[in-house]
Amino acid sequence: MLRKNEKYHIAIAGATGAVGRKMLAILEERNFPVDDLKLLASTRSAGKFLEFKGEKIAVEELRQNSFVNMDIALFSAGAGISREFAPAAVKSNCVVIDNSSAYRMEKDIPLVVPEVNSDAIGDNPGIIANPNCSTIQMVMVLKPIHEKFKIKRVVVSTYQSVSGSGQKAIDELKNQTRDLFSGNEVKVNVYPHQIAFNCLPHIDKFLDNGYTKEEMKMINETRKILGDDSVQVCPTTVRVPVFYSHSEALNIETEGPITGSAVKELLKAQSGISVVDDPPNNGYPLAIEGEDKNEVFVGRIRDDISCERAVNLWVVSDNLRKGAALNAVQIAELLISRP
Amino acid sequence: MLRKNEKYHIAIAGATGAVGRKMLAILEERNFPVDDLKLLASTRSAGKFLEFKGEKIAVEELRQNSFVNMDIALFSAGAGISREFAPAAVKSNCVVIDNSSAYRMEKDIPLVVPEVNSDAIGDNPGIIANPNCSTIQMVMVLKPIHEKFKIKRVVVSTYQSVSGSGQKAIDELKNQTRDLFSGNEVKVNVYPHQIAFNCLPHIDKFLDNGYTKEEMKMINETRKILGDDSVQVCPTTVRVPVFYSHSEALNIETEGPITGSAVKELLKAQSGISVVDDPPNNGYPLAIEGEDKNEVFVGRIRDDISCERAVNLWVVSDNLRKGAALNAVQIAELLISRP
Repeated sequence: MLRKNEKYHIAIAGATGAVGRKMLAILEERNFPVDDLKLLASTRSAGKFLEFKGEKIAVEELRQNSFVNMDIALFSAGAGISREFAPAAVKSNCVVIDNSSAYRMEKDIPLVVPEVNSDAIGDNPGIIANPNCSTIQMVMVLKPIHEKFKIKRVVVSTYQSVSGSGQKAIDELKNQTRDLFSGNEVKVNVYPHQIAFNCLPHIDKFLDNGYTKEEMKMINETRKILGDDSVQVCPTTVRVPVFYSHSEALNIETEGPITGSAVKELLKAQSGISVVDDPPNNGYPLAIEGEDKNEVFVGRIRDDISCERAVNLWVVSDNLRKGAALNAVQIAELLISRP
Repeated sequence: MLRKNEKYHIAIAGATGAVGRKMLAILEERNFPVDDLKLLASTRSAGKFLEFKGEKIAVEELRQNSFVNMDIALFSAGAGISREFAPAAVKSNCVVIDNSSAYRMEKDIPLVVPEVNSDAIGDNPGIIANPNCSTIQMVMVLKPIHEKFKIKRVVVSTYQSVSGSGQKAIDELKNQTRDLFSGNEVKVNVYPHQIAFNCLPHIDKFLDNGYTKEEMKMINETRKILGDDSVQVCPTTVRVPVFYSHSEALNIETEGPITGSAVKELLKAQSGISVVDDPPNNGYPLAIEGEDKNEVFVGRIRDDISCERAVNLWVVSDNLRKGAALNAVQIAELLISRP
C-alpha cells in the first residue's frame, strides 16, 4: 500500500536505457512530486551520471536492497531483471510499475493503460504491469470503439521503429545506413538481418504457432486490458527503418453497424488521442511527427470498403513515451492521486 | 495482330525511366528475340545513349509516327503519355504493352499477369495493360488460393519502396538520408512529407471515399485479373524508406476451410513463386533480398489465429521487375510464343 505523502521516493531500475532515460525526462517535465530519486542499473552502468531538474545524479548498482524506503519503482530493464528484483521491491513495501513482459499476463497483476482501465489497479497493488508498446497505442483506440460498437475482430499490421529494441538498435540503424552510404560492409548484430532500407516481419521470438511473441502480446494483452476475451486480434508485427514511433494499420470489425465518420467523432472526444485526418491536405499521422509527443495520433479513418461492419485506421505514437515511459509515469500519477 | 517472325521490332516508350531501363535489361537477360530496338523518351532525354547487348543505342524523341514498322511497344512513361501515343502505335499495327494505369480498367483491354490470366489476352489484342506493382505480386499469390479455397476477402497492408515513384524518389530518399546525417535541412519534393526514417500511409492521390488511387487499384485490378467481382479487398497502402521491392501483409478469408500448411504446399508448386518460410532460422522474405529477383517471395504463412477460415502471408517482390518490367516482357513473350 502506497503511503500517502506530499512527495515520493522514486526508483528507476534500468535508468540508463532508452526507456529509463525517457522516464526520468517525463517525471521532470510533468513535475512529478519527487522527493528522493534513485537511479539503478547494472554494474556496467553504475557510476554514470544522469540529470534530473538540473542536478546530476549518480547511477547506483541495482541490488536486492535498493528499494528500502522507496515508494514507487519504475522498472525497465528487461523481464529477467524484473523477475529478479521486483519481488524484493514489493517486500520493501515499494510499488513496482514494470515495463517488462515479466508479469503482464499473471492473473493477479493489473495490466494498465490509465485512459483505458485505471480501475484494474485495485486497492493494494504490489506490481502493476505496463503493457507492450504496440498494444498500448492500439487499445487506446480500441477501447472507446469497443464500448460503443463492440469489437469482434482486429486485423493489425505494424510498422515499428527500432527504438523499441533500445539504444543499440538505434545505433545499428544509424551505423548500417552510414555503412551503406559509404560502401562499407553492413554489420548485423541486434536484428537477424539488415534493418536499414528493409522491413523485417519479425519482432521478438517466433513461437510454435508461427506467430512471434510480439504478436501474441498484442492478442493477449489487448484482451486483458479490454477485459474481454471474445475480442479477436490477428497481428503481423514488422520492424521498419524508422527511429522513433510505431505506426499501425488497423482493420476493426464490429458487432454493430459502424462508420468511419462516427469513429472519427468518437475518437476526437478521447483524452490522450489526437485525430489527424485531413487527406485533401495530406494530413495523417506520421512517425516523425509522433516523436517525443504524448498523444496517440489517429488518421486515415474510413469505412472498410470490403465489409459492412468494419473501419480502417492508421495509428501512430511514440513507442518510448505513451508506449512505455509516459504510460508508466501516468500509472504512478494515478497511484498518488487516489483518495 | 502480331505478325509471326523469328525476331521482332521492339519499341520502349519511356526508355530512360527506372522501369524503362529495367525493361531493356530484362529483354537482354531473357534473350528476347529482338531484331530492331527503338528507345523512345521525351525531348529532354532524346540523344542520350542506353546499352543493349554491348551496343549503344541513341534515345529518340517519342512521336506519333515512332511506331511505324514496330511489332511490340512497351510503354512506361505515365498514363498521359500512354493515352497520347498508344493509339498511334496500335494504328501502326504495333501491339502495346502498357505499364501505366491509362487503360487497365477499360472493359475491352486485357489486364494480364501471365501466370494468372494469360487467356485474357484474346486473339487480336491492340493494347494489353500491365497491372499495378502492388496488385501483381498480390494476385500471383491470390490466384491459386482463390482457385482452391475461394477467397471472400483480403485485408492487405503494404510496405512499398520508393522506386515505385521512379528515379527521382530513389534520389529523394538518398538525399534526405544524407541531409539528416549531416545535419542539413531536409528537402521534400516527390512526396508530401519526409520519407527518410518515416512511413507515409499515402500512395497516389486521395479519392472522396477516403481511399487512395493506389488502394482502389488493388481492389479493382485484382477483381479484373481474377475475373471475379465478388472478391473483397481492403487495402492500406504505405510508402516506407526502402529502395527496392514492395512487401505486403495479407490476411485472406476464404469460403472453404483453409490452413497455413495447405497454402504453403500449394504455393510451393506455383511457377514464379518462391516460398521462404523458416521462422526458426529467421527465414522470411525481405525487401533487400527480393531486389533484382524475378520471383514473388512468400513467407510467414500461418493460420489466422482470429478466424477459422483465414490465413496470413507476407509477400515480397521487386516492384520494378515482377511488379512492372518483367511482367511486361513476360506478356511480350506470351505474344510471340502463341501458335
